[in-house]
Amino acid sequence: MVEQTNASRAKARKPQVLKGFRDHLPGQMILRQRIMAIVREVFERHGFEPLDTPAIEYLEVLSGKAGENEKLMYHFADQGEREVGLRYDLTVPLARVVAMHQNDLVLPFKRYHMAPVWRSEKPQRGRFREFWQCDADIVGSPSMLADAQVVSVMIDALGAIGLPSVTIRINHRKLLESLARAAGVPDAQAVGVYRIIDKLDKIGGAAVVAELERSGISASAAKRVLDLVGRTGKPDDVLHVLREDLEGIPGATEAVDQLADLFGYLHELGVPADRYALDLALARGLDYYTGPVFEATVEEPKVGSVAGAGRYDGLIGTFLGRTVPASGMSLGLERIIEVVEQFSLLPSRSSVADVFVPAFPDAIAAGATITTILRGAGLHVDQSVQPQRSVGEQLKYAGRKEVPVAVIVGAAEAEAGVCNVKDLRTGVQETCPRDQVVDQVLSLLARTESGT
Amino acid sequence: MVEQTNASRAKARKPQVLKGFRDHLPGQMILRQRIMAIVREVFERHGFEPLDTPAIEYLEVLSGKAGENEKLMYHFADQGEREVGLRYDLTVPLARVVAMHQNDLVLPFKRYHMAPVWRSEKPQRGRFREFWQCDADIVGSPSMLADAQVVSVMIDALGAIGLPSVTIRINHRKLLESLARAAGVPDAQAVGVYRIIDKLDKIGGAAVVAELERSGISASAAKRVLDLVGRTGKPDDVLHVLREDLEGIPGATEAVDQLADLFGYLHELGVPADRYALDLALARGLDYYTGPVFEATVEEPKVGSVAGAGRYDGLIGTFLGRTVPASGMSLGLERIIEVVEQFSLLPSRSSVADVFVPAFPDAIAAGATITTILRGAGLHVDQSVQPQRSVGEQLKYAGRKEVPVAVIVGAAEAEAGVCNVKDLRTGVQETCPRDQVVDQVLSLLARTESGT
Repeated sequence: MVEQTNASRAKARKPQVLKGFRDHLPGQMILRQRIMAIVREVFERHGFEPLDTPAIEYLEVLSGKAGENEKLMYHFADQGEREVGLRYDLTVPLARVVAMHQNDLVLPFKRYHMAPVWRSEKPQRGRFREFWQCDADIVGSPSMLADAQVVSVMIDALGAIGLPSVTIRINHRKLLESLARAAGVPDAQAVGVYRIIDKLDKIGGAAVVAELERSGISASAAKRVLDLVGRTGKPDDVLHVLREDLEGIPGATEAVDQLADLFGYLHELGVPADRYALDLALARGLDYYTGPVFEATVEEPKVGSVAGAGRYDGLIGTFLGRTVPASGMSLGLERIIEVVEQFSLLPSRSSVADVFVPAFPDAIAAGATITTILRGAGLHVDQSVQPQRSVGEQLKYAGRKEVPVAVIVGAAEAEAGVCNVKDLRTGVQETCPRDQVVDQVLSLLARTESGT
Repeated sequence: MVEQTNASRAKARKPQVLKGFRDHLPGQMILRQRIMAIVREVFERHGFEPLDTPAIEYLEVLSGKAGENEKLMYHFADQGEREVGLRYDLTVPLARVVAMHQNDLVLPFKRYHMAPVWRSEKPQRGRFREFWQCDADIVGSPSMLADAQVVSVMIDALGAIGLPSVTIRINHRKLLESLARAAGVPDAQAVGVYRIIDKLDKIGGAAVVAELERSGISASAAKRVLDLVGRTGKPDDVLHVLREDLEGIPGATEAVDQLADLFGYLHELGVPADRYALDLALARGLDYYTGPVFEATVEEPKVGSVAGAGRYDGLIGTFLGRTVPASGMSLGLERIIEVVEQFSLLPSRSSVADVFVPAFPDAIAAGATITTILRGAGLHVDQSVQPQRSVGEQLKYAGRKEVPVAVIVGAAEAEAGVCNVKDLRTGVQETCPRDQVVDQVLSLLARTESGT
């Protein structure tokens, strides 16, 4: 099936990964797993249930739903000549799951999904062709209480990772549309204005006005759009003004009412008022948003957008032929991991092992006994597999792996019922009775973690 | 890029997954995650480091290495016309990683890798086209102590999952070859005899002899092979006899010596002698094994093979053009999950939520306060997103989701500083002061878990 020429067989010896793809070596994986475990715990504490779906789906299932991202899909014909694709997000598979398992799932369905997705993007710094998404969505509730809970879980997840200083910018897709209409943009164009406004942060006001004009909007209307979306103030005050200004604009009242409900719920859920702001210029790129949209920005350290969210009442029901309300968030996991690494927000280590136990050919059993004792206390123990090497060489190996502590038991120690416990960071070694080895190791490990 | 006809657009509405692929709904995911967390913890306690690699690799990297499995590879040309494939195992990627990152990795390298792989198998009961592998390998040690540690971590992992009654059958690929030579099989055929012996359990002795004959081996040699591999007894005794019987057969002494070392180490590592046995007929299907091979069989409940392992000194060095010794194991995760479900070896639940908090339109803040208190105590709380529904309907929803406990705080309860704590399994409801809610909920949850 996989035929090879001699030339490609020779090339087969070249070990390489595709551009945009990455290996995660232990030091990185330890951190990735830790961050994912934290996020998972926050999601579950908020009552979100885990879900997983196949990496490969029928092309028809993945097609015609998620706009731009869909164009980047990896797709091919499988061995049975079926047209298939790799998932490029976790939202379209959720829509399929809700439709396929409607008799098994209880709505509202709060689910989270942490898994890799694939997009054939142009590889560039911080952008990958394989990356993990980390989504939490609530399917089946039209209430703004669902949206408020999405904001709340987003803030808790980012805080737990060590990014407590997050601001959530909030807007409403239909409010943006209404503002465009109020500015004099014709209905047909008002719907798509968000795509251009979305570039405001990146290209600035003048360029946005120019692009609005290029899309066929009059110069005066384009300028008015920019003025209107630039309005700032306390959410209640701004909404109060908008309610009057936009009277008679189709959809405007509903959007303003929903935002008012949302801000009310955020207050009642106890989300501090300084953590969120109404930003009438916030657009969020995705086609499928239909209601409130959110973006989480980290101010300290200043790293920009780390998560997005919004209501999308149209997508989930695609397969069912009816509207299923939904609101959800996606953490920018790869960006977050980068930030956590860059600013050392979580302790990092290059090995899972707490303790290294060297192997003496004449005292394998004694080393094994100590290993079992230490593991029984929950410690991660790397027992040497190099009995043929000298103890010095074995300890050097442990040092290179950055294992913090070694417990050394040769034949003499075994007979005397003692262990040598060595701090591999300082080189200090102490002897203790075998039944005190766990305490001795734990106290050395505690010393590192507190940094003393 | 993804063009659709009207016909395929209509089909797009049919939500379905490809044969051999599966959704994992929350009830299944909770169990899967639990099992994977247990295995992960055992691997780390044994000092194995986490690794992850891309799902997609250059076809050349994946080709020409792993025999039969490779034929089942999903492969295609990507958007840049590069020939790529989906990984079909975790061992070939490990070989690539060791070659590519030889300057960053400290050998011996103990790594584990838990991730999905894809094989275009004929779908059948218990066999999937997407399934998780769960591997732990030691790269860079020729010592039988590495093999013994692989057996030890295999036994600990299976025990921790609730499969304590495991037997490890042990053989040596080169011993099998030597036995074939001793039986009179010509050298050229002796190397491949394991492929036929591998079918012994499935097709029986007579059919194996017939197949050996069909492969060009004489009837008398075929029968002798079967006799020789059928020899049983205590490892030391069998090895003692073999050492004499196989004298002069190339490779035999080395194989016997290695097995003797291995059994010695297993004893010294404290692995109970009734957990393993020498089985001269054990072959293990994979081409690349070069030394000891292992298979874990669960006797109680009687579920057969759940994990395999072995030494493969040739594969890891493929990219480096030199031999890199390696020994490792693979847990049959999908089979194990099936067994855990079938025999209820671990507690199962259909929701992560411990507590449901209904929403009262006039007491959202009071519900949120209780929710925060409960989450602060580490509990998983599903806060309702249906303020528009009656409390009765909301509680019915929680009951369908099988959330065990509800905490109900309406406006009256909020004012009185109390909560109604309801056991949703029994329907019994009690009122308690707000500051006792955590204790009250914990005591109800404890009641379930102990089954009273």
